[in-house]
Amino acid sequence: MAAQHVRNVLWIMCDQLRWDYLSCYGHPRLHTPNIDRLASRGVRFTNAFVQGPVCGPSRMSYYTGRYVTSHGAVWNFVPMPIGEMTLGDFLRPHGVRVAVAGKTHVEADRAGIRRLGIDPRSTEGVLAAEGGFEPFDRDDGIWPPGFADESHQYTAYLRERGYDGANPWHDHANSAAGDNGEILSGWNLRHARLPARVREEDSETPYMTRRAIDFIEQSGDRPWMLHLSYIKPHWPYVAPAPYHAMYAPDDVLPVRRHPSELHHAHPVLQGFRNCEVSRNFSRAEVRDTVIPTYMGLIKQLDDQLGVLFDYLERTGRFDDTMIIFSSDHGDYLGDHYLGEKELFHDSVVKVPLIICDPRANAARGHVESRLVEAIDLVPTILDAYGLTIPDHVVEGRSLTPLLRGEAPREWRDAVFSENDYAFRDFVREPVGRPADGCHITMVRDHDWKFVHFEGLRPQLFDLRNDPDEFVDLGADPAYAAVRERFQARLFDWLRNRRIHPTISHDAMAGWTRKEDEVGIHIGRW
Amino acid sequence: MAAQHVRNVLWIMCDQLRWDYLSCYGHPRLHTPNIDRLASRGVRFTNAFVQGPVCGPSRMSYYTGRYVTSHGAVWNFVPMPIGEMTLGDFLRPHGVRVAVAGKTHVEADRAGIRRLGIDPRSTEGVLAAEGGFEPFDRDDGIWPPGFADESHQYTAYLRERGYDGANPWHDHANSAAGDNGEILSGWNLRHARLPARVREEDSETPYMTRRAIDFIEQSGDRPWMLHLSYIKPHWPYVAPAPYHAMYAPDDVLPVRRHPSELHHAHPVLQGFRNCEVSRNFSRAEVRDTVIPTYMGLIKQLDDQLGVLFDYLERTGRFDDTMIIFSSDHGDYLGDHYLGEKELFHDSVVKVPLIICDPRANAARGHVESRLVEAIDLVPTILDAYGLTIPDHVVEGRSLTPLLRGEAPREWRDAVFSENDYAFRDFVREPVGRPADGCHITMVRDHDWKFVHFEGLRPQLFDLRNDPDEFVDLGADPAYAAVRERFQARLFDWLRNRRIHPTISHDAMAGWTRKEDEVGIHIGRW
Repeated sequence: MAAQHVRNVLWIMCDQLRWDYLSCYGHPRLHTPNIDRLASRGVRFTNAFVQGPVCGPSRMSYYTGRYVTSHGAVWNFVPMPIGEMTLGDFLRPHGVRVAVAGKTHVEADRAGIRRLGIDPRSTEGVLAAEGGFEPFDRDDGIWPPGFADESHQYTAYLRERGYDGANPWHDHANSAAGDNGEILSGWNLRHARLPARVREEDSETPYMTRRAIDFIEQSGDRPWMLHLSYIKPHWPYVAPAPYHAMYAPDDVLPVRRHPSELHHAHPVLQGFRNCEVSRNFSRAEVRDTVIPTYMGLIKQLDDQLGVLFDYLERTGRFDDTMIIFSSDHGDYLGDHYLGEKELFHDSVVKVPLIICDPRANAARGHVESRLVEAIDLVPTILDAYGLTIPDHVVEGRSLTPLLRGEAPREWRDAVFSENDYAFRDFVREPVGRPADGCHITMVRDHDWKFVHFEGLRPQLFDLRNDPDEFVDLGADPAYAAVRERFQARLFDWLRNRRIHPTISHDAMAGWTRKEDEVGIHIGRW
Repeated sequence: MAAQHVRNVLWIMCDQLRWDYLSCYGHPRLHTPNIDRLASRGVRFTNAFVQGPVCGPSRMSYYTGRYVTSHGAVWNFVPMPIGEMTLGDFLRPHGVRVAVAGKTHVEADRAGIRRLGIDPRSTEGVLAAEGGFEPFDRDDGIWPPGFADESHQYTAYLRERGYDGANPWHDHANSAAGDNGEILSGWNLRHARLPARVREEDSETPYMTRRAIDFIEQSGDRPWMLHLSYIKPHWPYVAPAPYHAMYAPDDVLPVRRHPSELHHAHPVLQGFRNCEVSRNFSRAEVRDTVIPTYMGLIKQLDDQLGVLFDYLERTGRFDDTMIIFSSDHGDYLGDHYLGEKELFHDSVVKVPLIICDPRANAARGHVESRLVEAIDLVPTILDAYGLTIPDHVVEGRSLTPLLRGEAPREWRDAVFSENDYAFRDFVREPVGRPADGCHITMVRDHDWKFVHFEGLRPQLFDLRNDPDEFVDLGADPAYAAVRERFQARLFDWLRNRRIHPTISHDAMAGWTRKEDEVGIHIGRW
């Protein structure tokens, strides 16, 4: 019954969704029955990690199948270098329509496009600017004044539906109303408890769900790979009614922090703790105001996925479509006295990942604890379509064996994640590092987390004995040997990056024979 | 009198020219008065190293200013990834005409050009395919049957001058005649003692010298950067009369090898020693036949540079033009029982480098022993034109202070060079390594040379006590601490590669301010 390959891939991504705010991952108060249903039909990964704790670099790793160090888009809004290949480049030549509905955070390499004389209006120019995704309905979801764009489809939708103002995204979808009808901006966390000034059906999550269904209908019989990339529960933390009021402070997970963390803190951690978002999320009032709404946004996502999954069921797509549910990173929400993201605690770098492969009946409901990485999705998807994985470019590994419930004899021993705090002058300047010396690399296995900071002491956490990551052993002399082992692992990893995207390993291995064939005979007497 | 910036740069490169086969570098029998004259007017570097011991990767490092690990063109004929920027990309927007007369070995990234919809006939398409050089007269110099190309300018020139046959390059410029007029191919080393079947003035070196003068004349008042890139003294080792007979076996430098090198040799070294070119160059008959001709080809180069320098003197170009003399790597010529190149002894990775800066009167005739690298030329050239060095892309450092005879307080402590023997099945297979595990990296300072082989023991040479590199200390327990120090240096180097070509360090450092300006306010209460 099961086909050899899948016909379509539906790759769902949520933005800033923590791994532990779903009932299938154990949240006691937030019930997400539709996502749980997907997990029960597929494989749920309990040790999935992103390659960067910031949207942009994490997503570029998802889309290229390469570590941040390899693709070079080291932070948000850093252009994806023009030479990087993405999932679209790998799939499109094989007849698959590859599109996005929602967020990618891809920044076009406009300098590269100009340098190479690429027409930005040509198909290739658009795809180069969009990270290889047909922009069916691209929506990066953050439209502050400096980014307002009337050509944007959701803006046009809001206008059509009668929402007015200079920036309907901001004034309606992401703001609340005051007692006298004044606009209370969602940029201010204090307003998170109020309902958005938008009808629920016109808010971002239902809109994009409908757009995904539009795409699927429109594609007809043509195979497709749709990246349905929701911009929620990312801030601004504003939910439409009734989701703004579904949860109370009592429903929130206890904050994961310990006063001892404040002593002898790593200077980079301290720098991030000093910023506004960390100071605010360290306060109970802020957490009690914001997190119930964060949960409401997740609940809305789950409800909308219910709508979508019902549609897929009805149209038979569960039989020929691989469905992936993922997140680009988590959210500190006050854990470790931090807000937002940018560092490497599991609250941020560990993500939910569920893959439902229509061919893999044996593994339905399987829970997989092996270490997997965001970069594994590109090879997994290529594998699902029956395509060759360009392993001289792609650095992830196909999850196919795990999706079948197999127990591979050999698997990766560690995961890696990177960030660069050069972009944060409020951290970099007090720490006293130059802009070209702020790279951070995390190496994590099941037992330890090691975080290398260029020019500074590392962090080290004993995950077996301190799963909450409260005790930083990075300067403890008793753990020098462990740190050395992870330094060596980092060295090994750096030496084995995919550095030559233009030649395959097979072509390398066959070189001398080829040289001979064209008549190059070196050193013959 | 001296202008603030240079007007032009003439960057001369010889192919496979050893550092020690020039009289200014101490060769006792091979007099190269014209190159020596350049050295007496400029700075001669005695510790200049290439980033790869093979033409292609070495040249791509020269042209990008980046290490092989960063640009990704890891071997000959490996396409230069489309996203890599070269000297031409940096200079052309500032009105400098950037062209090549001779060899670049740039392989176009045709897959990238197709993927991005670049018209290969457009200006940008041609430049992308040519590594940023206007192909004024590109000539890679090796035209075996599999590469024959009638559109090639030197081929057309030979035909015009009456040289016939299917492949006039091979049959005339690179072959000799037998007693009965038969063609004796230059591919066979045994024919190196005979004169080429070409008149001296029609051979490659005088032809390309005239082409350089044509270019300079044609450019008129427009500033230019000409890469005059001779394909000699690279094999085939065939010289036209009278250069084929100018030197005798007695004029050749003693072979640099020691029988003890044959015991417990590193397996990769052993693999290269087993191939035909190494076995042949280990024989006195081969060396005595080939090296005098290699010397003759160098002598011809020097004579032609005399013609060129006289022209430049006459036309005033010595006053406004920086002149660089360089080589892409050396040639074992039997040293260490090896032929050709591909490994890291100084016979191969150390190169001659002379830079004559018209503005730097104080340093005329200066001999500079600091460690310099091929990747330093791009920033040096940008500096000479008064342009900003994009230090988030370019990994070399400007030699400007050394050209002025200054003594910088801080300078690099080591040089790096890389190769990948995956391309050599005759080495890889006996060694038993996978194609993606054959990368080699050399780290060298003034005292030591350390060579890391992925998955195998390293090599280590004590250059103070063993300048000939006869004693490999790579497995000697007494030197474990030295090896550890160099492993750490390699790790440090890998962590500090330029990984984000699309954002400058300044832009990174100013990010938070910019975010604020466009209206992104994270975590405000």
